[in-house]
Amino acid sequence: LIGSGNVATHLGIELHQAGHRISHVFSRDINHAKDLAEKLQATPTNNLNDLDQQSDLILICIADTAINEVAELITFEPILIAHTSGSIPISALSKFKNRGVFYPLQTFTKGRFISLRNVPFCIEAESISNKKTLKDLASQISEQVIEMNSSDRKQCHLAAVFANNFTNHMYSLAEQLLYKKKIPFEILKPLILETAKKIEQMSPIDAQTGPASRNDTVVIKEHLKQLESDKLEKLYSFVSNSIRDLTESKKASKL
Amino acid sequence: LIGSGNVATHLGIELHQAGHRISHVFSRDINHAKDLAEKLQATPTNNLNDLDQQSDLILICIADTAINEVAELITFEPILIAHTSGSIPISALSKFKNRGVFYPLQTFTKGRFISLRNVPFCIEAESISNKKTLKDLASQISEQVIEMNSSDRKQCHLAAVFANNFTNHMYSLAEQLLYKKKIPFEILKPLILETAKKIEQMSPIDAQTGPASRNDTVVIKEHLKQLESDKLEKLYSFVSNSIRDLTESKKASKL
Repeated sequence: LIGSGNVATHLGIELHQAGHRISHVFSRDINHAKDLAEKLQATPTNNLNDLDQQSDLILICIADTAINEVAELITFEPILIAHTSGSIPISALSKFKNRGVFYPLQTFTKGRFISLRNVPFCIEAESISNKKTLKDLASQISEQVIEMNSSDRKQCHLAAVFANNFTNHMYSLAEQLLYKKKIPFEILKPLILETAKKIEQMSPIDAQTGPASRNDTVVIKEHLKQLESDKLEKLYSFVSNSIRDLTESKKASKL
Repeated sequence: LIGSGNVATHLGIELHQAGHRISHVFSRDINHAKDLAEKLQATPTNNLNDLDQQSDLILICIADTAINEVAELITFEPILIAHTSGSIPISALSKFKNRGVFYPLQTFTKGRFISLRNVPFCIEAESISNKKTLKDLASQISEQVIEMNSSDRKQCHLAAVFANNFTNHMYSLAEQLLYKKKIPFEILKPLILETAKKIEQMSPIDAQTGPASRNDTVVIKEHLKQLESDKLEKLYSFVSNSIRDLTESKKASKL
């Protein structure tokens, strides 16, 4: 296991629990490696040459920007090596003969352990046998195993930025608006949860409500006045226009 | 009960189930009034003069823009009259002596019935006894009853636009991005649910991840190229800049 962050921790623990032996945990910071290695009964190291060359799989769970560098530093030919990134193509590992991708489409956070059972795993590999190895492995920890090429995976990652990063930012802005009036953020939590649950049942485009979707210019103007910040006003207008455009194109397509 | 839409339906059913008698359901469209009245063992009407003047409460559950007009058309002095809007001040009912607000902070959708048990009810009234009536009533269907003035309620409503309308739009854009590559939206649902659940445990500003929050200009540039739409590129840049600004101001405040 290369890496000791949130993805490495989640994958390491679940693979260990599924009965796999993790031989080594690598991290540049040996203390980080030790922390995770202890949980996995593995050997910690900060030297890539220490990795067990006979491991069935080397799993790279590190920041996208570090994948190239780590690949450079591995000087032996692993039985199979895979990274866990959404946006990095499989070709980043092209110096290795047996390469693949093992991408869990989920947000992992320190201090919040979640089950991988429902997390979609996007698997990519070139040979049938490497594909089978990665799919079998993913199936042991998740019920959602999907074969996906690098281009589609990159699109999923981009969509995930909207669905997770941008969504979370909307929560942050809402929290700030409430904070101004000393209203606790708690009050929005049932709404936020229902917003997420609703789209399990209907397409988000059908679930859209609010002043922008009904083009209620009176409320929109009121809100813009209320925001008291140029940046927030611009963001509000921008997102509202985007909602209006999408609502109109949906109506047009139904005519 | 004035109105027959999603809010009227949800409130009507839960109040009826809590043992309250709904005498009349008003809607301009008598068929809409009949549909809901049947569920509530009430009398349907499309004439505001038919309302029972001895009712303990007249509850207005209609579009914000119609509240003024309906208030105009009620010619008697009700025992108590309240609207259920987030953005309309209590003063919209100033022609009545006993007025209030009974605002459930939640998104209600046709065909999706949700319990009101955890829905925050924001209550406003001028007299102690009207406040008590509305708070007692809300307490019978929800565990979250809060007294709130019109100005704070308006701010909650604005924050809810970010937390619900804007968030849902991010889901819609993600769905569209996936659709281009014929990837089913299903794949994002576990991520969306986890994004919402995570902020029950931590502040959204601490939960923020992604290229914008770590100012990863390489990934951001890649994403902008990938979007293939001027409008989406602008929105992506705009929200990313907003994330970066907020992340930086958070860091600065911790120094």
